[in-house]
Amino acid sequence: MNDFEFYSPTRFVFGRGVTDAVGQHVAELGYKRALLVYGGGSVVRTGTLARVKESLAKAGIEFVELSGVRPNPEVASVREGIAVARENDVDLVLPVGGGSTIDCAKAIAFGVFHDGDVWDFFAKKAVIEQALPLMCVLTIPAAGSEGSSSCVISNDSIDAKFGVNSDLIRPKVSFLDPELTFTLPAYQTAAGVTDMIAHICERFFSGTGSSEVTDNIATGIIRTLINQAPVAIAEPENYEARANIMWSGTLAHNDLAGCGLNAVPTSRAGGWESHALEHQLSAFDTSITHGAGLAVMMPAWMRFVWREDPNRFLAFADLVFGIEPVDETEEAVEDAVTAAIDELQAFFAELGMPTKLGEFGLKPENIDSFLATLKANKGEVFGGFKKITLEDARVIYESAF
Amino acid sequence: MNDFEFYSPTRFVFGRGVTDAVGQHVAELGYKRALLVYGGGSVVRTGTLARVKESLAKAGIEFVELSGVRPNPEVASVREGIAVARENDVDLVLPVGGGSTIDCAKAIAFGVFHDGDVWDFFAKKAVIEQALPLMCVLTIPAAGSEGSSSCVISNDSIDAKFGVNSDLIRPKVSFLDPELTFTLPAYQTAAGVTDMIAHICERFFSGTGSSEVTDNIATGIIRTLINQAPVAIAEPENYEARANIMWSGTLAHNDLAGCGLNAVPTSRAGGWESHALEHQLSAFDTSITHGAGLAVMMPAWMRFVWREDPNRFLAFADLVFGIEPVDETEEAVEDAVTAAIDELQAFFAELGMPTKLGEFGLKPENIDSFLATLKANKGEVFGGFKKITLEDARVIYESAF
Repeated sequence: MNDFEFYSPTRFVFGRGVTDAVGQHVAELGYKRALLVYGGGSVVRTGTLARVKESLAKAGIEFVELSGVRPNPEVASVREGIAVARENDVDLVLPVGGGSTIDCAKAIAFGVFHDGDVWDFFAKKAVIEQALPLMCVLTIPAAGSEGSSSCVISNDSIDAKFGVNSDLIRPKVSFLDPELTFTLPAYQTAAGVTDMIAHICERFFSGTGSSEVTDNIATGIIRTLINQAPVAIAEPENYEARANIMWSGTLAHNDLAGCGLNAVPTSRAGGWESHALEHQLSAFDTSITHGAGLAVMMPAWMRFVWREDPNRFLAFADLVFGIEPVDETEEAVEDAVTAAIDELQAFFAELGMPTKLGEFGLKPENIDSFLATLKANKGEVFGGFKKITLEDARVIYESAF
Repeated sequence: MNDFEFYSPTRFVFGRGVTDAVGQHVAELGYKRALLVYGGGSVVRTGTLARVKESLAKAGIEFVELSGVRPNPEVASVREGIAVARENDVDLVLPVGGGSTIDCAKAIAFGVFHDGDVWDFFAKKAVIEQALPLMCVLTIPAAGSEGSSSCVISNDSIDAKFGVNSDLIRPKVSFLDPELTFTLPAYQTAAGVTDMIAHICERFFSGTGSSEVTDNIATGIIRTLINQAPVAIAEPENYEARANIMWSGTLAHNDLAGCGLNAVPTSRAGGWESHALEHQLSAFDTSITHGAGLAVMMPAWMRFVWREDPNRFLAFADLVFGIEPVDETEEAVEDAVTAAIDELQAFFAELGMPTKLGEFGLKPENIDSFLATLKANKGEVFGGFKKITLEDARVIYESAF
């Protein structure tokens, strides 16, 4: 087990109707004026936004609003939110939505304290040293941003989708009401579950070690998702399925699943290769849902790298799918590992996720664009499990068509 | 899945040599004068206390000391610590030791703000509303106090051992260095692991529900402990075994393993029946190690109550031991449940834990004393999985001889 720090200070308020308790929690922590951040579609349609506003009003909390945050949130929204936050002197940022909305809110929370442009943080020209407190109302379980230190923002002008991490942007309180996810379409449900599994796999295949207790927890979460996701898709109002998925999504990304796998104690475990490969797709075409991109790129990455440490993949095969090699020959190991990756990809496909990049309308000639932004983001070589060169990345992208 | 709140704000600093980073963390959080709390035996002998003091001195942190805290800490030590804390105007309480030392430190942390006697909190005549911040250096993994909201103190004058809970006494930072546990004797190692498993079982058998993801996590931790404890006892300096046990002990009791099982959202899951039955033993004879008492009382409680919800015990049998009933008959269910309880008790025995109360030198005629303090503590009826009357408790105690 590697040395690590684990710090997940968020209070998670989980269950039926917790949306109506937002104002009370804001008041208890002494905040006075919130910036509500949201997309605009479903949270308005379903009445969730109205419930949050009513809850704030009842508790005597003032609020201003930033709406129109899109999936793969763009830095322009962040800039707009920073301006609103400054003009109104808010003391809390309160996103209502999924990971995109929460990430936009996080960038606003640290951007308000920066004299320059907020993109400086993503371009590594500035470091997060201060942030407004955040509270989240989660409506799309997927990104785990409600408990994570991470924030990913797109910049369309340079086809970039970059991330930053800081403990300062872990939310104070996150409200998780599984009933809010009853209306989530099957595709979004599936993409969310894929993202959760990817968050665990990025850590599991960190390339820097293992820990029995962390491995048992991590694969226990994946097995839950594999059991519950088909139920939630078949019965969208199945509370148990929705609740298990929602809480799994938080635990998949609050760093619990990486304890003991970190390269250095204060780092996040893993090289995040699948995420890096996917981010270039949704940076190229912002209509691509992150989880759907991962459903294609993660198995492709796994097939490319597993020989680097077959035992780690055998542990995954056993703990997640109960697949063991029939003997110790190289062939049996390859069969077992391949069977596990096949099972994982088949599971994504059964949920309705794509298996090939062509299904997004992408073409092999787009690979040069992916590689250009990958290089700008990650440099010539990246990865923790196995060093991936740009030429390796080309091979992985090609294999995904 | 029941509604719940999960809040574990402690920063866990885990790994080799983290003891030497204590001063730096204290300084970073801006504290100036700490009350060091410790027992006196092993932390002095092994040099751990000296390392902590050196680390504090290097960081320019002043400190005063309370030593001599015993296992099953007595309220007199707490009172002494409160006096020292007040006289020296400390702004941090810093226990170095196991659960007893940490619990004593916690009681000092909230006791300093109370005008009356600190026992008022345990007698339910006062409520924790304020506490000094705590940081812990853990040397005996068992009680989970390094991440928990709980604090258990004995009062010899009334043969009582009572607990309180508050989020205000969750440590700010806990330092977990598995190498410090290399010198832990086999008996203490075994008793600690038993306590950890009990912490998970108390929640698992809460009687108020289940959650697939929590069940997978909880039983994954138990399986880790069952694998790693014999290794740590056979090879006391096996780092992986010690590290897995140490981190498992924290996760067994920071409330992660109870998410979705709570009776009410802000409660802790479970009726804590085995703990209640055991506390009367170590209140009666303070030389009884809590975990060793649990090794006897928990299986005895399980055999008494399992018929209340056989399916919950079947889930435990399957997820922990892979034991399934051969068919759906009542007999097959009983066989499977009994086999699982037998396996659990055999595991404790293999670690060197007692299986009968006589091994502590206790006698059946002591049961009246256990019942008297149980009644004072829990009333006529207690329990979440099944309501336990004092007559039931007598039957369970008798079965444990």
